[in-house]
Formats: sequence, C-alpha cells, structure tokens
Amino acid sequence: MSAEVICVGTELLLGDILNSNAQFLAQQLAGLGIPHYYQTVVGDNPERIKQVLKIATERNIAAEGASPAQLLIFTGGLGPTPDDLTTETIAEFFCVPLVERSEVLEDITRKYAARGRKMTPSNRKQALIPEGADVLPNPTGTAPGIIWQPRPGVTILTFPGVPREMWRMWQETAVPYLKSQGWGKEIIYSRMLRFWGIAESALAEKVAPFFDLPNPTVAPYASQGEVRLRISARASSEAEAIQLIEPVQQQLREIGGQDCYGVDGDTLASVVGQLLTDAGETLSVAESCTGGGLGQMLTTIAGSSSYFLGGVISYDNLVKISLLDVNPEDLAQEGAVSDTVAQQMAVGVQKRLGTSWGLSITGIAGPGGGTDAKPVGLVYIGLAGSNGTVESFKYQMGSQQERSFIRHLSVCHALDQLRRKLLTT
Amino acid sequence: MSAEVICVGTELLLGDILNSNAQFLAQQLAGLGIPHYYQTVVGDNPERIKQVLKIATERNIAAEGASPAQLLIFTGGLGPTPDDLTTETIAEFFCVPLVERSEVLEDITRKYAARGRKMTPSNRKQALIPEGADVLPNPTGTAPGIIWQPRPGVTILTFPGVPREMWRMWQETAVPYLKSQGWGKEIIYSRMLRFWGIAESALAEKVAPFFDLPNPTVAPYASQGEVRLRISARASSEAEAIQLIEPVQQQLREIGGQDCYGVDGDTLASVVGQLLTDAGETLSVAESCTGGGLGQMLTTIAGSSSYFLGGVISYDNLVKISLLDVNPEDLAQEGAVSDTVAQQMAVGVQKRLGTSWGLSITGIAGPGGGTDAKPVGLVYIGLAGSNGTVESFKYQMGSQQERSFIRHLSVCHALDQLRRKLLTT
Repeated sequence: MSAEVICVGTELLLGDILNSNAQFLAQQLAGLGIPHYYQTVVGDNPERIKQVLKIATERNIAAEGASPAQLLIFTGGLGPTPDDLTTETIAEFFCVPLVERSEVLEDITRKYAARGRKMTPSNRKQALIPEGADVLPNPTGTAPGIIWQPRPGVTILTFPGVPREMWRMWQETAVPYLKSQGWGKEIIYSRMLRFWGIAESALAEKVAPFFDLPNPTVAPYASQGEVRLRISARASSEAEAIQLIEPVQQQLREIGGQDCYGVDGDTLASVVGQLLTDAGETLSVAESCTGGGLGQMLTTIAGSSSYFLGGVISYDNLVKISLLDVNPEDLAQEGAVSDTVAQQMAVGVQKRLGTSWGLSITGIAGPGGGTDAKPVGLVYIGLAGSNGTVESFKYQMGSQQERSFIRHLSVCHALDQLRRKLLTT
Repeated sequence: MSAEVICVGTELLLGDILNSNAQFLAQQLAGLGIPHYYQTVVGDNPERIKQVLKIATERNIAAEGASPAQLLIFTGGLGPTPDDLTTETIAEFFCVPLVERSEVLEDITRKYAARGRKMTPSNRKQALIPEGADVLPNPTGTAPGIIWQPRPGVTILTFPGVPREMWRMWQETAVPYLKSQGWGKEIIYSRMLRFWGIAESALAEKVAPFFDLPNPTVAPYASQGEVRLRISARASSEAEAIQLIEPVQQQLREIGGQDCYGVDGDTLASVVGQLLTDAGETLSVAESCTGGGLGQMLTTIAGSSSYFLGGVISYDNLVKISLLDVNPEDLAQEGAVSDTVAQQMAVGVQKRLGTSWGLSITGIAGPGGGTDAKPVGLVYIGLAGSNGTVESFKYQMGSQQERSFIRHLSVCHALDQLRRKLLTT
C-alpha cells in the first residue's frame, strides 16, 4: 500500500491559508512506515476532484515496488456550505449513493444544541455518508469523516480541513484503524544531525558515500545558514531503528567534527547553554546591529537565567561609550563596525555585568549604511573570556542579503564562536 | 493559460518542512489573475517527477474554459547535491540536452569567492541548463532557475526551494516576464487591515455586514494575537481596485478605532517607529522575560537608529539593580514581576540612556517559575514618558500558553501600549 494526500479547498489555491495538514499527515505516514509519494491540492470543484481521484487510483505504484493498493487521504470540503463537495463527489466517482446516517444526524443536532446554536437545513448534509462506508467520528466538530473501501485495493479516509479537528480524528480513529490493517509494524525513525559553519556542498562532499546507504538513508538539507543531515532507518521498532542509526551517526559526527553542533531538537542556543552550565560559567551580551536578537535567542531556552545574566543593547554609539566603556577615540577612528569596537564591547559588558564571558555583535545589517570599505553584511563578533583573553571574528555575509537574514546569521555566528571556544577550553 | 505548482522534495513528503512556497505562489498567481487549479508535491525521484510532468501537460484544461496552455512552476531540487534532480529530469522528459552556461558558472564562482568558500565540482552542476532555455537569475543564491518553452503551449519556470531566494526571483524576473506575456490585466488587489488588542470574534461581530459584500470582499484572519481584515477587489487595474477598496477601508478603520494599528506591511514596530519619528522623540527598552526580543523587534525596521537608542537586558535581578536602579527593597518585597518593578525599569532605562520614552517588560514566560499568586503568563509592561509620567499595564496570558507565544505577545503588547500613548499625546 502507498498513500496519497489530497487536500481539497479553493482557499489553498488562493494562498489564503498554509497547508499545514499536508505536513502533519506526511509526518504521521512516515511514522507509520506507509510510503507516500504524492500530495495533490485541488479546489472545491467536482470535475477536478474526480480528475484527481482518477489519477490517484490509476497511478502505476506497482512499478515502484510497492503493493498497488492505494490509501487516499482527503482533507477539506466536509463542511455545511454549498462549496463543501468532497463526500458527494467521491461517492459519485465510485457510483455509490449517499445515505443519511441517523447516528450522525443526532450527533450534529446535539452539538448545535450544546453550543446554543440553531441547526440549519444545510447542516443536515453533513450526515450524508456513502452507502457501505464507516463513519470516522469527529469528537470536536460537526463534520465527520469516512473510512471506506469503495473497491478492492482502494481505501479512502476523509477529514475536515480544520487542523485541530483533523489531528484528533487522525490520532483517535485513523491510527488505530491503520494499525489494525497491519501498518505501523515497520516504522521509519529519523535523527537529524545539525551543522553550523560549513556549506551544504562542502559537507555533502565529505560524507558523499553515506548518501548511497540503503538503510538507514542519509540526506542533506540546508536552510538559514544551517546544514542538516537526516539519518532515517526503516525497522520493526524504535530500538531496532536506533541500532541501525547509531554507528552511522557516530561516523558522521566524527567526519563533521566541531561543525556538527547537535542532534534533533538542539539549537545553537541550547548547546551553548548546556556547555555554560557544565562549566559553571556565565554570559552577558552587547548587541549593536542585532538590537537584542542574541539575548532573545539565548532566552528562548527555559532556565537560561542560570547562566545568562543579561546585556546591553548599544544601538546608538553613545550607549557603547556610556554603558560599555568603548573608547570614543577608537570609535571615531576605527568606526563602530570594527575589530577594536567589537572587542571593547565584549570586554565592556563582561566587566559591567561581572560574567565569565562577554559576547558582542556589531555590523551593518542594511539595506542602508554600507560603504565600499564597509559593505552591508560586514559583521564583527567580539568574545571576551574569563582569563582576560579577548578575540574578534570578521564575517562578510554579502551585501545582497536581506537585513533579517544578516541579523539572523550574526546571532548564530556569535553563538557558534562561543560554542567552539567552550569546546576547547 | 492556467498554472500548476509542482513542489519537488522528499523532505515535503516526510513532513520535515512546511510547504510555504506553495502558499506564496498561490497568492502571487491570484494577484496576477492567472487561473490555478492544481498543486502537486513529489519526491526527488526522476520517474515520479516525469509522471507528474506527464499528468500536468495532459490535463484537459480546455474543458474548463481556460486556454489549454500550461504554466508549470517548479520549486525545489536545484541544489548541488546528487538528489537535486529537477532541471535534468525536466530536460530528459522533453528530450532536450543540458548545456553548461558560462555566465552562470562565472556567477556561481564569483559568489563562492565573495563568501570566501571553495567551489566544489558538484557546484558546477548548477550551471547546466536545458538547451534553448533562458536563465532565471538568482541574485542571492547559487542555483539559478529557468524560463523555458520546451514545446508550444507549455511554459516552465523553476525556482530553488529556499523561500527567500524564490521570492526574490519571482518578483524580479518571473512577474515582469508573466506581465510581458499579457498577464496581470484583470487583477485581484488586496489590502490588509491590521488590528491589535481585540479578539477575532469581537471584531467579526462589529463588522459582520461587510462579510456579505461581493466586490470588494472582506474576510477575517487571526494569528499570533493579531487580527486582520482582508479587503480584496477584482478589477482591470490597481487604480480601479483601490477605488473600490478605499470607502470600505475607511468605514472599517472607523469601526476599528485605535484597535486598527495599520495596513498591509505595517508592523507594530514600524507604526511605533513612525509615530516616534513624527514626534521627534526617542526610545530605550528594559527587558527581563523577553531577553532582548523587544529591541530585536524594534530594530527589524531599517533606520530605527534615528529613534531607538538601545537598552538593557536585565535578565538577572542584579542587573535590574545595577544598571536600571531598581530599588532592591521593592524587588525583594514586590518581586521582579510586579507593577513597581516594571515602572522602575522603565524609568531606569529612560534616565540611563537619556531618551524621551522608556519601555519595560517583566514577566513569567514559563514553563517553570509560576506560582498561584504569580502564574506563568503574568506580564507587566512599564512605560515612562518624557513629562515624568510613568504607568504600568498588567497582562494575564494564560498559564497554558507556550513560552515563545507569551514572549511574543509581551513584545507586541509593549509596542501597542506605547503606540496608543503616542496617538493620544
């Protein structure tokens, strides 16, 4: 069997809403080990819905090595309004009549009464189910789904488009049903290795032989300056999958070295937090172009107050002088975006807040303010350590990059420099 | 012509990422008036990509009343790794060879050099373009797209999967190209009114009659504490659409009053920035539970340095005392999360940085740290004005809410309080 997700809704084709249902179902199918090769979005239009059904039921899945049986998962179009057409169109496609199910009608009536709302004739429509189909109950909303085998080898599940309702119906009814059909015996379990400070192509070349592994598989992803390697194992249990993943993970970590900063839910902020906690050390920050973004990211971690004491947002140069003791002459001579000022900011905040480490960022986030000598995207990170050492790091992020991206990279690079320092001291 | 969006990426089928590209393209196609009936997601697999191409090029669109010409918009699979197969698979489907384009290779080489990174042989692959196709330049990344008519009636556009890169390529090259082909004549033009400090249901009841308008239409949206009303007009030109929208917009703004903070791309930070600029006044911030998030949001606005001088991240209580002159006795008696401390933080940062306004946040973001008297989600905003006034505002955001949501709402509420104050002084 393989699954196809079919999301029905003109609002998706107009871009009014983001298709989070497709992502949820994709994750769930992967977890159950059900192959899933296609997703389709179609509007609230009977002819087009039928066209999609025809394509989905005729796909040559057998050639893929999967059993030709099809699981078609529909979301959307179960509501009471005239443009909610999913159930009746599916029934029509398979030439099966709709019947009114009294237990569904009673359930809808009860729900409307409980909310103090009057049931309208259009709500009655939601009690119409294809003959021979089972009801997929909706505990929170009025629109039930169906579980239906209209012909051998084709199973149809329908869900409303409202994510909350869909999630619950999936967990409470669809998952037990799919497990009763023998699914979930073989699972896909994944682990994500996270890298900072290396380009996707460079990492991909270093670990190229791993991309040919059959089980677990290894695949690279990149976004927002981060590179990830996903290790996915197909196995009969989580424990077995982990056994398959562990040796590959260890080899990849060895190849990645310090560029590999963490696994799964780790973030640069959580890893830095753990390293500071382990060392019993504290941190303060001095931020110019990021305006508070470094502190913001550090404090996404609950409990960060045990190592992060705070900082100074020295957006204006006068604040750099008054609160961080940056030398006004150096500021005038070298400019606010310089190694010297980055270092003085780091030392200044470290002393002012009395922390083990002081970490600073000063740069040109753009779009204005760049010059030939100091273009947009030029950023200095300063790092002051408890043993009196102070360093700075220069980054050129490219003057074509957007302000928000430059600021995001700046924060991540700052955390990454502190991380590498903590690893070696 | 009608468009089909085809998103290529196994990570979409595994649910690793949310398909925001499909939403972006859907909105853009609607804005240009290009019919769009289907979206398909397929993995990084040449056979399946070809199957999708076959289906898309053979759809019976003529029966829909649209011209049978097809615009196929691909995202994803343009990267340098072996599983990036989109370009070569499309070329193979249409039986056209790939050719290395020297100008693309030069551009890639230049970009690697500018970032101080070594170009690897795999990057060379990104310079391969189907013979006869035009290059769709990528100003920020290394993977260009193509604009290609492989046969009469079929136009193909390809974009990388990285949203930032895709947006810019769409705006700078694809939109002018599509307009040159005669699109964008009947347009859908929308304006978004933005509200803060009112619930979606309350606003919906106030403006209910507007939801029945045929042109422009009005629809409500809500997310992350913000409520929006989208006014959409269908017209032959932007000017005509604006004429339809203006009177409705004015009525809605009157009904919304001060809860309506802006239009379209406005943010609370940009509106506050404009009000401060108009008044010739300056701002500093003192942050506890948001850890820099307020400064971060204020400085998302380019040019914010003209009114935002900086601030203090007083995550630790000692920093509240040493840098913000919060009274240690009040801190001990009232606690850090209190009206008194919020006010002292606001006054403290205002004095320390010498700004017209001082804005502070102190609260319990959770998940730990809550008590019966001071539960998670309790947040105080302090606001000190130039005339010596100081106020504070108490918010209960609900102890069930997530840390990130509480912190986001805190920042927005702080900006909103300053906004309302600036409107009335």
